[in-house]
Amino acid sequence: MPTQEPITPAQSEASDQPLIALVPEPRGLDALAAVDGVTALLYDVRDEPPEGAEAAEVMVIPSRPVDRVLALVDRLPALRLVQTLSAGTDNWTGRLPAHVTLSNARGAHGPAVAEWAAATLLAVARDLPAFAADQAAARWNPHVAETLWDKRVLILGAGDLGVQLRARLEPFGPHITMMARHPRPGVVTMADLPALLPAQDVVALMLPLTPGTHHLADKDFLAAMKDGAILLNAARGPVVDTQALLAETRTGRLRAILDVTDPEPLPPDHPLWHTPGVLITPHVAGDVPQADARAWQVAAAQIAQYARGERPANTVS
Amino acid sequence: MPTQEPITPAQSEASDQPLIALVPEPRGLDALAAVDGVTALLYDVRDEPPEGAEAAEVMVIPSRPVDRVLALVDRLPALRLVQTLSAGTDNWTGRLPAHVTLSNARGAHGPAVAEWAAATLLAVARDLPAFAADQAAARWNPHVAETLWDKRVLILGAGDLGVQLRARLEPFGPHITMMARHPRPGVVTMADLPALLPAQDVVALMLPLTPGTHHLADKDFLAAMKDGAILLNAARGPVVDTQALLAETRTGRLRAILDVTDPEPLPPDHPLWHTPGVLITPHVAGDVPQADARAWQVAAAQIAQYARGERPANTVS
Repeated sequence: MPTQEPITPAQSEASDQPLIALVPEPRGLDALAAVDGVTALLYDVRDEPPEGAEAAEVMVIPSRPVDRVLALVDRLPALRLVQTLSAGTDNWTGRLPAHVTLSNARGAHGPAVAEWAAATLLAVARDLPAFAADQAAARWNPHVAETLWDKRVLILGAGDLGVQLRARLEPFGPHITMMARHPRPGVVTMADLPALLPAQDVVALMLPLTPGTHHLADKDFLAAMKDGAILLNAARGPVVDTQALLAETRTGRLRAILDVTDPEPLPPDHPLWHTPGVLITPHVAGDVPQADARAWQVAAAQIAQYARGERPANTVS
Repeated sequence: MPTQEPITPAQSEASDQPLIALVPEPRGLDALAAVDGVTALLYDVRDEPPEGAEAAEVMVIPSRPVDRVLALVDRLPALRLVQTLSAGTDNWTGRLPAHVTLSNARGAHGPAVAEWAAATLLAVARDLPAFAADQAAARWNPHVAETLWDKRVLILGAGDLGVQLRARLEPFGPHITMMARHPRPGVVTMADLPALLPAQDVVALMLPLTPGTHHLADKDFLAAMKDGAILLNAARGPVVDTQALLAETRTGRLRAILDVTDPEPLPPDHPLWHTPGVLITPHVAGDVPQADARAWQVAAAQIAQYARGERPANTVS
């Protein structure tokens, strides 16, 4: 859990020098140009640090390659804040120096990821893949499909992604339960999982990958889900035990909608690709045209807070 | 336009006899059992009228076969109210005796049809057909898709279907304009169509088929739509000029999402089936498990109003 004490800018308050922030793409120069007291320097993670990087207190990082990013972090003695452009930070937690604070892009990707989750869930409910097959065969073959109306939907994770998904599903008339680690109004805790799981038509994983959520959807979790239910994973692949999911989907007992897999990318010969009732997209839930601009907007806001001597709101460790 | 004067029950107030209502399926007997003063009689549209049908003032009709239904209507001298189980009444308007009032199932199918429209629109925006093709080929092939966020959506028809679609799309962040024949708060009129059409990313047809809407989306209408825009038809096939739509979709200039077609069913050799950018479902937008129960609930409410000497709220002619 993050501590609540403010992190203190190491150099910017001690001198008239602007705060140096390293950015991995030209868009970052534009995004930080409007932030008072910050000078952005472009870097290439596959190259040597740029001139002036030794004074950099802030570094915005790309999502890969992880090893290169970590190697560069180790070469920056003044670094205090690492800012991601993604919501998930599972590649970084526990792997940064103790004096470095990690902040994520929470709030940037909720609209896109929640839209993807609603889109795929509606497509499966309304049997669009079957109607697409009929169209490909030029076959006018009407049949009654399912609906989200009156369905029980459990959203695991009540952060930005979960809250945005709830807002998008509500007009379709399902019964939605939000679940998270910590209780708050309208959100139940994981302690209720065993009691609630067997009644759900849809279980949507919208939470971060942490040691506590690794293989959360394991054999027992999946066995507790009711026949025909849908497991939707918009979190990270390892939140689900892939072998256990394969066992339950191959028999047709459960269905799945996966934007993330374990392993990822899913190799061409992996049996999940062709398991009936399993819909797979290649980690694109957040990939909409606005994604980069939204992520930089959130990143710039975090860096502005840091530059003012405040603790960034999205601090995760 | 419907006149507002109440229709008067012909027999039920003149005697102690219950109102006789003919129903085309056993579910109708259950649906009307709770309506005071009404006795329901089951009929088969392919058979002779049942005993007692000559006194029937109310008839609930199936959607086909149209000729059989009309022939039976002509044999019922006491008939005053014909109630459909569908929202659309284009098969019946102008074809019933002058002393017969027509009432539809407005309110029954909005949730399902609007869900279908949102589902197909989201599927196309998020490129789910392309990702499904990648899955079929076991291909991990991420790419940026579109989103409904910030898109301009024009909904033609501000009845139950249009209003329900707006409610479902709003959380996804598009700019929605509602258009109908008659102005009302939040709804513009067809007079604004020429000015608005060129700016729309999506044009959703959610209005009844009438002489005024036949071929509404004709060559000029489609030519005014912007490159890459999507025409969605959840109304009736003849609201769109199929040849004009074919011309605009075959070149890839426009896209289409169609639950209804003209002709319908679409013959196996029709070119629309295989036109890229055209998604077709076989008139199933309203076909969800709750559809029949909802339609009978609305029908029973209309018949209850008639039995009380009121004009049914869903009177259409």
